[in-house]
Amino acid sequence: MTTIDIPEGSLFGLDNLPYGVFSTPGTAPRVGVRVGDSVVDLAAALGDEVFAQPSLNAFMAQGYDRWVEVRSRLVSLVQGDVPAAAVFGVDEVRLHLPVEVADYVDFYASEHHASNLGRLFRPDAEPLMPNWKHLPVGYHGRSGTVVVSGTDIVRPCGQRKAPDEDAPTFGESRRLDIEAELGFIVGVGSPLGSGVSTADFTRHVFGAVLVNDWSARDIQAWEYVPLGPNLGKSFATSISPWVVPLLALEAARVPTPVQDPPVLPYLRENEPWGLDVDLSVTWNGQEVSRPPYREMYWSPAQMLAHMTVNGACSRTGDLYASGTISGPEKDQRGAFIELTWGGKEPVTVNGEERSFLLDGDEVSISATAPGAEGRIGFGEVRGRILPATEAKR
Amino acid sequence: MTTIDIPEGSLFGLDNLPYGVFSTPGTAPRVGVRVGDSVVDLAAALGDEVFAQPSLNAFMAQGYDRWVEVRSRLVSLVQGDVPAAAVFGVDEVRLHLPVEVADYVDFYASEHHASNLGRLFRPDAEPLMPNWKHLPVGYHGRSGTVVVSGTDIVRPCGQRKAPDEDAPTFGESRRLDIEAELGFIVGVGSPLGSGVSTADFTRHVFGAVLVNDWSARDIQAWEYVPLGPNLGKSFATSISPWVVPLLALEAARVPTPVQDPPVLPYLRENEPWGLDVDLSVTWNGQEVSRPPYREMYWSPAQMLAHMTVNGACSRTGDLYASGTISGPEKDQRGAFIELTWGGKEPVTVNGEERSFLLDGDEVSISATAPGAEGRIGFGEVRGRILPATEAKR
Repeated sequence: MTTIDIPEGSLFGLDNLPYGVFSTPGTAPRVGVRVGDSVVDLAAALGDEVFAQPSLNAFMAQGYDRWVEVRSRLVSLVQGDVPAAAVFGVDEVRLHLPVEVADYVDFYASEHHASNLGRLFRPDAEPLMPNWKHLPVGYHGRSGTVVVSGTDIVRPCGQRKAPDEDAPTFGESRRLDIEAELGFIVGVGSPLGSGVSTADFTRHVFGAVLVNDWSARDIQAWEYVPLGPNLGKSFATSISPWVVPLLALEAARVPTPVQDPPVLPYLRENEPWGLDVDLSVTWNGQEVSRPPYREMYWSPAQMLAHMTVNGACSRTGDLYASGTISGPEKDQRGAFIELTWGGKEPVTVNGEERSFLLDGDEVSISATAPGAEGRIGFGEVRGRILPATEAKR
Repeated sequence: MTTIDIPEGSLFGLDNLPYGVFSTPGTAPRVGVRVGDSVVDLAAALGDEVFAQPSLNAFMAQGYDRWVEVRSRLVSLVQGDVPAAAVFGVDEVRLHLPVEVADYVDFYASEHHASNLGRLFRPDAEPLMPNWKHLPVGYHGRSGTVVVSGTDIVRPCGQRKAPDEDAPTFGESRRLDIEAELGFIVGVGSPLGSGVSTADFTRHVFGAVLVNDWSARDIQAWEYVPLGPNLGKSFATSISPWVVPLLALEAARVPTPVQDPPVLPYLRENEPWGLDVDLSVTWNGQEVSRPPYREMYWSPAQMLAHMTVNGACSRTGDLYASGTISGPEKDQRGAFIELTWGGKEPVTVNGEERSFLLDGDEVSISATAPGAEGRIGFGEVRGRILPATEAKR
């Protein structure tokens, strides 16, 4: 048996306890929980086969009461003696995609981001579309290309046409960008023909991850009318390996900004589900932005209610992301296209003027939030850009 | 043992042999093949466990050579004696969703449809966007709401705002529509960072189904800028239960219409993959349209090449649909919004003037194509509209 040391000020104390999927050399991926700088093998520690799976889906599908029960058992467990064979250092393990992603929806819930992108993509029109303050605008992304933090990102190729060009050309994206987002994972689905009310949010959503919605702005700008982004986004979406339970985010809850005009009844909330999560974006190790999630116009409870109000079912493993998190200040913008205003106002990264991503660049997004005791951490979502592969094209 | 009778002129002769998933009362769903008016239980007839699954995915993942081999064995099998316990009448079985759908992408590949919709949704602008003839425009839909033919469709609710209204209201869709499409199912995926060339189409795509992409036009019109359709489509997409193998469609292959301007190299085809499939749309039993698939501007090989050219992986079970099939004639339009020109030119259905779908309406889409011997059938995709449920809203 062993005891688990939680360093003073750790972002992974007893008030966090995020779940992930890990493996050690020669062993199969299975569910673990992070405590301090340790990972506890839950199948080994609790003797429950639901954790001997390569994703959180089976556990998440057991529902809210079970989430509460396991969390409570974990608090007792890690304060006492734990079988030594069930404890690993976080640096000893490999982390995998924590969930088998069912459907992936990406929203557009930051007023600052939507306004900035509107100005950049449609300079002659009103920045916000007429629908924007009435519903959380979103679209479906590609589930199959959701990857775990640390996965290298191959620079995408595709069609691009600059405004001064007559016809599109094919080649690698010259405007490769990030989007710093928070993602929410559905643990318990809802049937077809039904819907999830804002009040039922916590019975369905298990937890949250960090998301980097890599975006090829040149491909996106040419393709996106009239059916929305596709190839400009579908090459990769990275998520952080640790799923922070909603149960750990109680102390982070804040009201959303005032919603005016008032929303339709199905989007009203009795309890606030804005979240006071502070993100940090680093580019080759230098922090370039600190997006504040508390500025998001739409809450995740409103997003889920909207997504299912037409009778669409939701499923265990559904991932929906907030869209880029941008605050009102320039250094709070969660995408480089905004931060550098379409590349026209470069930022200085390690002494170099930079606008979009170059091959070899690495971006890491991390976040913290108030926990029940101190601050809790989301860990990070990180990715490095590899040169485009032109094979087979 | 028994022999299988194939009626003269059957659309399910030896040159078709579509696969599906069926069950009989008290038994588990498993893979079958349709021959004449019979369904052959493949696990029972061939003694192969890959067919004892509730989807075609495991079989499809075995790859092209295996698809050819099994098809050849089936031709021999059904011409000889088959174990009586492996043969069922098509009316005795229940048909299930034939594949576990991974990602679902919907294209927009009919020039007639895209032009008609452009005129209806954006009357003051050019009907075709500048990108339309350069790339197959498409977007991701909701995999979780792909349902098998025969599933009732609950009328969706959502936000709608007519042009003469100041603010959106919430309620049931008043402009519920269909889209008659052909869908293609990926059998063998392709890895992240790679891509599928047009020449490799047949190594990856297993077969085709009919698709009804139910569409709430009022919800769609209000929500779709700037990120594309979402709630207006995500409530349900129906597919036919029989997957017609690409191997059965050799005789149906035709060139696509001339593509001018010339397409970029990655979209060029050495062999034509237009398809001479004739669809029929019936509304409460009366045929109202005959969409011709041969008119589609983009081929399914081009759609897959485009979808993966940015390095996005594809997976076993990916479904991608053509978008509404509309020909140049009014009675060849595959959506009611086009057929009735936004509701302004109603059609007569069983003596009644009709524009959009009413509760209780039933729509069936069927199709045939040239086979190696006679014509082959896709069966049908059918759905009936149930009244909206306002529960929990």
